[in-house]
Amino acid sequence: MASGWFYMSCMVLGSLGSMCILFTTYWMQYWRGGFAWDGTVLMFNWHPVLMVSGMVVLYGAASLVYRLPASWVGPKLPWKVLHAALHLLAFTVTVVGLTAVFGFHNHSKITHLYSLHSWLGITTVALFACQWFLGFAVFLLPWASQWLRSLLKPVHVFFGACILSLSIASVISGINEKLFFVLKNATRPYSSLPGEAVFANSTGILVVSFGLLVLYILLASSWRRPDPGALTDRQVWLLVSHYRWDKAKKACFAPC
Amino acid sequence: MASGWFYMSCMVLGSLGSMCILFTTYWMQYWRGGFAWDGTVLMFNWHPVLMVSGMVVLYGAASLVYRLPASWVGPKLPWKVLHAALHLLAFTVTVVGLTAVFGFHNHSKITHLYSLHSWLGITTVALFACQWFLGFAVFLLPWASQWLRSLLKPVHVFFGACILSLSIASVISGINEKLFFVLKNATRPYSSLPGEAVFANSTGILVVSFGLLVLYILLASSWRRPDPGALTDRQVWLLVSHYRWDKAKKACFAPC
Repeated sequence: MASGWFYMSCMVLGSLGSMCILFTTYWMQYWRGGFAWDGTVLMFNWHPVLMVSGMVVLYGAASLVYRLPASWVGPKLPWKVLHAALHLLAFTVTVVGLTAVFGFHNHSKITHLYSLHSWLGITTVALFACQWFLGFAVFLLPWASQWLRSLLKPVHVFFGACILSLSIASVISGINEKLFFVLKNATRPYSSLPGEAVFANSTGILVVSFGLLVLYILLASSWRRPDPGALTDRQVWLLVSHYRWDKAKKACFAPC
Repeated sequence: MASGWFYMSCMVLGSLGSMCILFTTYWMQYWRGGFAWDGTVLMFNWHPVLMVSGMVVLYGAASLVYRLPASWVGPKLPWKVLHAALHLLAFTVTVVGLTAVFGFHNHSKITHLYSLHSWLGITTVALFACQWFLGFAVFLLPWASQWLRSLLKPVHVFFGACILSLSIASVISGINEKLFFVLKNATRPYSSLPGEAVFANSTGILVVSFGLLVLYILLASSWRRPDPGALTDRQVWLLVSHYRWDKAKKACFAPC
């Protein structure tokens, strides 16, 4: 039953994450004119898509690496490398997303970083950079003692969750701001809830749902790498069902 | 040392919480014309003050009742009643805050609940109501078994933290939206960062800082009511210093 819940959560998470990216892309493509890299508003359109992809979906997926039953046994190093590499990918996508909005502002002579959305967003990205470098230095490089790692691990997990929460707050304020900017038409303003407003508001609610599910799996579920020699009943069930599935898959796809 | 950190965190938390309420009140009083209860924009001005006070500051304080060392020993019931009562007060303040914005919208013929800020805000208040009633039914009324309470306690704590995170996201998008509404003056727009914009953006950052500190004490610190018969060294230190302080206070203020 525990393994059923785990795999169902993974499916829901994958679907929600894909929908967050697809909905944001569709919003920009269908209602805001599509994409370009030329300093116009079409360059800005990359910003919401890349921030949702990098700071929310990829970041969330990267955070959950140690929740996969396959990561609970055997050497931890490959999973650490995967955790760091996925976060680095998320950070790279985020930086391209920031470049898109800075490029648009430069081209259109718009002031940088004046709104509360931008203050919170840039603070969140700076915290992400600090978290990545500290995590790399303490948990991946070999110099740090086990004592230091045990001391910093809960702080690392807590700040990881905080950065995701702040990303969600930034995305919500960003979507809200964008809709007030573009839906000014007197006959179909934002307050009359035209199709674009309902679609973009729903995208925001999807992002919140994805983030809450990531935080639940990260902080509140029992799906985590156990302390050495201390597997719980639930974790044993999850591992057994994971390896059964793995064996069945290999048997099906092995060359005869 | 642990007790020093605890009491310092309480002082920082109290100062940050007071500053959140005072800054929001000052913003509305000094730049937005003050307060009234007459359906005009002066009635709306109660909305940010009461939402920050109810959904962030009072809610955060109410969440931390079980982190006070005095609550770790003796009967738990009085602390449960205090936890529920403070949350009920937070909810009441929130409902008055919502009444202020609905009253203003009715009077000024503005559509209700169209922005993403309002969708997220009303969802958060609805979740808060559900959380309060479920918490009251399961943890305060005597019918629920110990097994059910142990099962639901981590879910209750997790959703409590989620509601605070969603409140912060709602406050950030609300401040951002309000500033775009009111700072439209061509000579001093929001993008030129006039005094009001810097002050209100800083208020948003204060709210985020307060929320993160509450979440840290709630989720990541060792300051919590221990399982029966299992006090950690840090918790023993905190309890000892708490009772020393209590004794010293009584000795100083006792009538001769």
